[in-house]
Amino acid sequence: MDRIINRRDLAFQLYEMLDVEKLSHYPRFKDHDRATYEAVIDAAEKLAIDKFANHAHKSDEQEPQFDGDKVSLIPEVKEAMSAYLEGGFHLAHRDEDEGGMQLPLCISQAVAAIFTGANAATTAYPFLTIAAANLLTAHGDSWQKERFLKPMLEGRFFGTMCLSEPQAGSSLGDIRTKAVANADGSYQISGTKMWISGGDHDLSENIIHLVLAKIPGGPAGVKGISLFIVPKYRLDEQGQTLGSNDVALAGLNHKMGYRGTTNCLLNFGESGACQGFLVGKPHHGLGTMFHMMNEARIGVGLGATMMGYAGYLYSLDYARQRPQGRPVDAKDPEAPQVPIIAHADVRHMLLAQKSYVEGGLSLCLYCAHLLDHAQQSDDPKEKVDLLLLLDFLTPLAKAWPSEFCLEANKLGMQILGGYGYTRDYPLERLYRDNRLNPIHEGTNGIQSLDLLGRKVMADQGRAFHMVMERMGEAIGAAAKYPALEEFVAAMQGAVDLMSRVTMKLVGAAREGKTESFLANSHDYLLMTGHIVMAWMWLRQATSAAAAIEQASGDERAFYAGKLMTARYFFHHELPKTGPQAAFLASLDTTVLDMPDAGF
Amino acid sequence: MDRIINRRDLAFQLYEMLDVEKLSHYPRFKDHDRATYEAVIDAAEKLAIDKFANHAHKSDEQEPQFDGDKVSLIPEVKEAMSAYLEGGFHLAHRDEDEGGMQLPLCISQAVAAIFTGANAATTAYPFLTIAAANLLTAHGDSWQKERFLKPMLEGRFFGTMCLSEPQAGSSLGDIRTKAVANADGSYQISGTKMWISGGDHDLSENIIHLVLAKIPGGPAGVKGISLFIVPKYRLDEQGQTLGSNDVALAGLNHKMGYRGTTNCLLNFGESGACQGFLVGKPHHGLGTMFHMMNEARIGVGLGATMMGYAGYLYSLDYARQRPQGRPVDAKDPEAPQVPIIAHADVRHMLLAQKSYVEGGLSLCLYCAHLLDHAQQSDDPKEKVDLLLLLDFLTPLAKAWPSEFCLEANKLGMQILGGYGYTRDYPLERLYRDNRLNPIHEGTNGIQSLDLLGRKVMADQGRAFHMVMERMGEAIGAAAKYPALEEFVAAMQGAVDLMSRVTMKLVGAAREGKTESFLANSHDYLLMTGHIVMAWMWLRQATSAAAAIEQASGDERAFYAGKLMTARYFFHHELPKTGPQAAFLASLDTTVLDMPDAGF
Repeated sequence: MDRIINRRDLAFQLYEMLDVEKLSHYPRFKDHDRATYEAVIDAAEKLAIDKFANHAHKSDEQEPQFDGDKVSLIPEVKEAMSAYLEGGFHLAHRDEDEGGMQLPLCISQAVAAIFTGANAATTAYPFLTIAAANLLTAHGDSWQKERFLKPMLEGRFFGTMCLSEPQAGSSLGDIRTKAVANADGSYQISGTKMWISGGDHDLSENIIHLVLAKIPGGPAGVKGISLFIVPKYRLDEQGQTLGSNDVALAGLNHKMGYRGTTNCLLNFGESGACQGFLVGKPHHGLGTMFHMMNEARIGVGLGATMMGYAGYLYSLDYARQRPQGRPVDAKDPEAPQVPIIAHADVRHMLLAQKSYVEGGLSLCLYCAHLLDHAQQSDDPKEKVDLLLLLDFLTPLAKAWPSEFCLEANKLGMQILGGYGYTRDYPLERLYRDNRLNPIHEGTNGIQSLDLLGRKVMADQGRAFHMVMERMGEAIGAAAKYPALEEFVAAMQGAVDLMSRVTMKLVGAAREGKTESFLANSHDYLLMTGHIVMAWMWLRQATSAAAAIEQASGDERAFYAGKLMTARYFFHHELPKTGPQAAFLASLDTTVLDMPDAGF
Repeated sequence: MDRIINRRDLAFQLYEMLDVEKLSHYPRFKDHDRATYEAVIDAAEKLAIDKFANHAHKSDEQEPQFDGDKVSLIPEVKEAMSAYLEGGFHLAHRDEDEGGMQLPLCISQAVAAIFTGANAATTAYPFLTIAAANLLTAHGDSWQKERFLKPMLEGRFFGTMCLSEPQAGSSLGDIRTKAVANADGSYQISGTKMWISGGDHDLSENIIHLVLAKIPGGPAGVKGISLFIVPKYRLDEQGQTLGSNDVALAGLNHKMGYRGTTNCLLNFGESGACQGFLVGKPHHGLGTMFHMMNEARIGVGLGATMMGYAGYLYSLDYARQRPQGRPVDAKDPEAPQVPIIAHADVRHMLLAQKSYVEGGLSLCLYCAHLLDHAQQSDDPKEKVDLLLLLDFLTPLAKAWPSEFCLEANKLGMQILGGYGYTRDYPLERLYRDNRLNPIHEGTNGIQSLDLLGRKVMADQGRAFHMVMERMGEAIGAAAKYPALEEFVAAMQGAVDLMSRVTMKLVGAAREGKTESFLANSHDYLLMTGHIVMAWMWLRQATSAAAAIEQASGDERAFYAGKLMTARYFFHHELPKTGPQAAFLASLDTTVLDMPDAGF
């Protein structure tokens, strides 16, 4: 793979759609401008191609091995880590006085996205570490920061998130891992954690596990969960690594994709000698762990987008080069063959991919940009509003790309035909890797309950109304361009539809019909996702319409491509919401009425 | 896996929906009845579980190895083959005087389906051999039958189909393999064939390749293709195996799924010593090869269905056993957890799967049953009609299950969550295996062109009108049951829709707008497929409505499940055709208008 993202598109998203340069008005970003952003992105792209994409195939074929004692990875992963840390990319978003680049989130997420597109499995290691470090930054005490965070920022320690257990995945209230207070204020941890990505490896001096556990005597369910730092190796008072902290790798899970990332079953405290340190207050661990949830979920959506994006570009380049067949009305079998990009069905699959991956990128960067504003704003009301809006969009930013950019990979593979089905081409790996995204970080079913059951209802529907308002603003901006007339009308219809259906569902909820209110929540997620995506495409079309008249050559083709892809989305995709809306508004209970024995 | 198919459903399809026992009116099947059919299916199911399902995981993990000299497979494959041949399953459809069971196709296909559901990769070997043998039965001369067919029927020789080449997949008119006549009437074969399933292995004494090649001087394109028998090993006059026939394995393709089936790049005649034997007339090879195409494509659809089916049953059993979470309106975190089948979103995913896999089974068996009638009828007009109808349905029977039963596997995996993503559970393998089906045996894009470009137009739309007629009959039969009223109305609406859209498209074709007529052919395939599937579900609902009043206990639950799944399909799936129809009827040209540089 020598293309991971279309840099022209990324620039369009950042500078034309989001006007990221305006963030320099905030003191935190005052030293940045487009040139500094582009320099970082250039460096990231080069490193991603040289040191990450180079072993994506190999680390899939030669997955991490566990000999019962230690885990070993192919050496390219360590080389990639060293280069990544040396480039300071793990500090992209952090303060300059920590050695960081102090970049806005929308830039640091774009940078992260490039690495994911190149090699999702290898990038999981630093990404988990960054997430754990962010959590300790926000919630650790000064001793914890000195002892654990500092070496993470130095790249010497890596991190993990330990939530699930074999019997508790989506239902975290049912975890059984225990934390019993020691006399010295630390805790004795015991229990088993499942699906721990990066849970063991040979890439760092130590691994800092952030572990959810229950302190005996606390409340039942999620209200009795606390959060602990549990290092793989104990540290002495000087921070030097001592021996084992009784965290044992019970086994590696062997996955369909994402194979280069170790995924572990970990036993804590089998010998009664596993020491943990409470982060934040007892019994408030879930909230602490999920403090950065919006960021994490946007990251999943962006990752899914990028696997789709890399696959789209690969299938596009293939379609331009592969000669096969002739136009449908050609009569002469001896006429030269045409590249398959000339065939309507292939173009269809390319347009669908383009609409999904560029749309997904647009939504995820929009969300990251909201978070930048929310974090930097000094207006408390604006802060609250932006976070409410972001809360609403987050389940969509996680779930929509993980559905549709997976679909993009399926289409990319189809374009390559038999070749696409072989492991000699990257499409089948991207498709396998991407299949994780609808499952982890809250399944898409959970996202749909979060969206409809919580976010829509939150604060008397304020977030929902803010989304409607912003869609209205986009419609107003688009209405200035006669060429966008049909999109404006379709978007207005979609807004009305979303409003009507939502009111109908909320009405059912208010009548206490909780079960039928939520029965088809996944359809609600799909419908809302497509309408939000139409909004993103309307925004893109508006920027393109504004720019195309003055453009020529490649630039003109780029904008024309944006407008045509918007047309594809409005003609082919958005109308799918019609039957979804009708199904939802009918409060259909078929899934509830089906007798268990009838399956 | 200990369930591959719901036998109650299979019996429903065969005896209640299709009334297969009536086939005994034909002389060929006069010795058969439900008892003989069930005995064969029982034996197949037992063998499939004992000798095929047992190594499905292992043969995926330990794929065939090529040491540069020979190919080796895990020993379980050979054991499965021996038991299969000993059971005479490769002769299920053949004459009793050949040692066959003389079963109707709908029964022999159901039997084949059970093996595919158990282990698609291993069953590919006998299935390819059966297909090659069928072709030689129809088109081989008596010497060819004695020399090559007989040992195939004895299970000593296996067969393959060699169509594609590295530069010619969908475009067979561009193959380059050459066949030059020898003085003795045989041909000198030279060229390279790609994607040859079962192209080499250690399971049989010889491999009989059926090879498409061009005789120099013939017409260009597909009209210049001839068909040849090319054995891996030469035979002497007594049929004893001599040495190599200069067919060299250049390499194995390493696929995403279907890993247990060797897939080969074969070089024919590298040393100028590859002998082939012409089958049928020169330059008529493509027609000969595709003589059995309907059967082969129904087989692909049925295989896709069965992978979906096995995955559905696995996820159903899992959902019944896995405790996780509580009802949406439960307040007490200490209440016992419920099995996940209690959650609406899981029920949704189960109903979707059930509607896809039981619908797919219904369509494929319907097609096989049509073929039985077509083959046995002594009324030439009826024969022609049935084959026309079958020609129309075949691209749908191939493509619809390969899209939606793959989707079923995706949903099944989602139900298993993280576990579903690991290689310890069969869902991810089924999903990988099933991903081949939209690609091979004519991609689904090709199927859509076949459907809209050929089958709809064939014989002044006669096939299309026959489908409409049969749908009308099903509506008439359903109208007798008040409980089916809403389905009847919806089906009538779907028939009208399909008719209107098709007329509109045909109108464009008649005006010579070939490009825009075919621009969205894949949407036409999806729309028509869903309407045909609604027809299948209406038929099932009618049978269920007829039987449910007299039924009790498990039987009543079974019929209630059928009726509820029909409701799911009519409420949730069929309405998707609305936007597809509108898009098609608008003769949308977005995919054609997109400038190449705009991608």
